[in-house]
Amino acid sequence: MRRPHHVSSREIERKFLIRHLPVEILHSRHFRIAQGYLANERGGRHVRLRKKASTVSLTFKVGRGSAREEREIRLSPKQFATLWPATAGRRLHKMRYEVPWRKLIIEIDIYHGRNHGLMVAEAEFPNHASRRKFKPPGWFGREITGEKRYSNVRLARE
Amino acid sequence: MRRPHHVSSREIERKFLIRHLPVEILHSRHFRIAQGYLANERGGRHVRLRKKASTVSLTFKVGRGSAREEREIRLSPKQFATLWPATAGRRLHKMRYEVPWRKLIIEIDIYHGRNHGLMVAEAEFPNHASRRKFKPPGWFGREITGEKRYSNVRLARE
Repeated sequence: MRRPHHVSSREIERKFLIRHLPVEILHSRHFRIAQGYLANERGGRHVRLRKKASTVSLTFKVGRGSAREEREIRLSPKQFATLWPATAGRRLHKMRYEVPWRKLIIEIDIYHGRNHGLMVAEAEFPNHASRRKFKPPGWFGREITGEKRYSNVRLARE
Repeated sequence: MRRPHHVSSREIERKFLIRHLPVEILHSRHFRIAQGYLANERGGRHVRLRKKASTVSLTFKVGRGSAREEREIRLSPKQFATLWPATAGRRLHKMRYEVPWRKLIIEIDIYHGRNHGLMVAEAEFPNHASRRKFKPPGWFGREITGEKRYSNVRLARE
């Protein structure tokens, strides 16, 4: 994540299935991610806990699709350990690869467990103009931006 | 709150309206409380932010009524400041008085703002036996344990 310690932001992003893996993934940064959901409201409003490598965080999100509000804080290991059990039955596990592509970093998520076989690419943009102009590389498959069945909230349901 | 820094607990409690204020309230400990909700699921599952005097915390709760699971962490002022704006339109303000009564501390909440005039007493018990044996003092009014309209989640809706 290219994000400071405490963050409030509005995400502008697009998500795609992956047709085939780019060779760049073999030497890109990667992190094991475990995440779980404390509470999900209809409309996409939710509170998520995440462990990414050894960094733990709590994230509030509201809204769906290409633009949504996000607020994130780092947690101490102790804070995380207290809250994490509350996400039982609402978790997912994946490996994230950060692949540089032109001026962007494309995040590739390879899902584990119940979602084994699912591979998703996500591009985040600095503004709406660059979002519109984005030409997906050939290894991208179908666009799934805003498709609820591919939301992490949904993928975490057990 | 008679609670350690990080807590996972199952609350056993009863709530009542207040018929009239006990004289003990005049020399009891009291704290200004502001709280807001990040996300509320049906069934009472929610994530709450609270500022009690100068202490800020995040609490996960699930379940309703006399027994429910609760997990609470203290936040740093910076963590709180990042998340608090997300509770806009979902907040309440009250003054809490902690009144000793026999072996218990009875918490009296005097609500402000839109809920002005509402006064609620809450007794928390160490076990179900003491909960059953509890004889409400004469200044208690009607019992409202588990009544949704008096839940803080509901009272915070603007």
